[in-house]
Amino acid sequence: QIMLEKLGKSQRTVDSELEAQIEQLRETQRKYLSILRLTRAFSSHFQHVVVTQHALADSFADLAQKNPELQKEFTCNSETQRNLTKNGELLLNALNFFISSVNTLCNKTIDDTLLTIRQYETARIEFDAYRMDLENTKPELTPSAVALEETQRSYAQHKEQYEKLRSDVAVKMQFLDENRIKVMHKQLILLHNAIAAYFSGNAMALESTLKQFNIKLKSPNAVTGSWLEQ
Amino acid sequence: QIMLEKLGKSQRTVDSELEAQIEQLRETQRKYLSILRLTRAFSSHFQHVVVTQHALADSFADLAQKNPELQKEFTCNSETQRNLTKNGELLLNALNFFISSVNTLCNKTIDDTLLTIRQYETARIEFDAYRMDLENTKPELTPSAVALEETQRSYAQHKEQYEKLRSDVAVKMQFLDENRIKVMHKQLILLHNAIAAYFSGNAMALESTLKQFNIKLKSPNAVTGSWLEQ
Repeated sequence: QIMLEKLGKSQRTVDSELEAQIEQLRETQRKYLSILRLTRAFSSHFQHVVVTQHALADSFADLAQKNPELQKEFTCNSETQRNLTKNGELLLNALNFFISSVNTLCNKTIDDTLLTIRQYETARIEFDAYRMDLENTKPELTPSAVALEETQRSYAQHKEQYEKLRSDVAVKMQFLDENRIKVMHKQLILLHNAIAAYFSGNAMALESTLKQFNIKLKSPNAVTGSWLEQ
Repeated sequence: QIMLEKLGKSQRTVDSELEAQIEQLRETQRKYLSILRLTRAFSSHFQHVVVTQHALADSFADLAQKNPELQKEFTCNSETQRNLTKNGELLLNALNFFISSVNTLCNKTIDDTLLTIRQYETARIEFDAYRMDLENTKPELTPSAVALEETQRSYAQHKEQYEKLRSDVAVKMQFLDENRIKVMHKQLILLHNAIAAYFSGNAMALESTLKQFNIKLKSPNAVTGSWLEQ
């Protein structure tokens, strides 16, 4: 059937509105995966920064003792780096929460709907194949009424399956869209507030952002996102 | 002579105060090189962060257009990342200036004094060797007055050279110490002010810090530290 369609020898059934929505969903997944990849890179580079700041804080503190003539300057730098390290770890928790939630959205929630979409696309091809069969069945050439009836039954069966899956897809896509908007709205606000708080040196705002989003500290692996809000 | 000293068969001339200062200088160079290595690592990781933030700003801006239902959230994040990118580049200029100045201090200025110190150490060994020669020359065994005179002249010559280099080293170390304190005082204040301004989101303070230290922007290779202030 796919070959016949490609050769232009069979017309495919088209639900253009649904297909546009499906294309849009695939595009959205691609874009979100790109955000996910960048945020992971950001988190990894930032973690290296924090580790280096930790080592710098130690070295400066050591030199403050060894170089009494520059004690004030070294101490100042050591304390700044140490504070940044502490807040940097808070920001890393927020970044990991964002990454974990967007990862679940892209690679579990959206993928689940895309699986139904692939089933729907297969059903559409099968349905069109049986439809072609029926259209090409000319009564004068048909060997028997039984065979005609069989072709009609197959057609009806696949039509029903196609329509059921089309309706499944439409419903799933609508739920997914609502869920996606809810999750991304929450995660984008978290990301923005955490980044803005950290990079304006507002440790208290950073901590309260983490509390607001119920982010458990110090154990990024234990972070469980309540992303499924519906 | 080194072998005789190791075997305990020859006493070395010791200027314990100067030698303590030399050991202190070598220790300081080691510590500063470690700071230099860490700041370079910090700058490199931070540069990766800035590049990623740039890409994130673009991706968020793109999604703000493609996802009208989340336009506000994506735009917000895009603008924050873009601002951070701009300020991040300013901070990178400050970091590169610090790195370039401390690199000159460690690998040129201090090394220059260490070269004189090595010459002084060689002169000390030679002087001690000729001193031993003279001490071991027993008048009753000396073949001739000419040979004795020759030994005495060599001894005096090497004594003079040793004392000249010892005085050179003392003078150089004093100048180096003053220069080192001046350079590090300036650079540590720059580093602290730039880091504090950037991580408190104070773009104006960051810019004025760069101006205060005459840091030319956008061309890290052209940055020339006026580290030699004396």
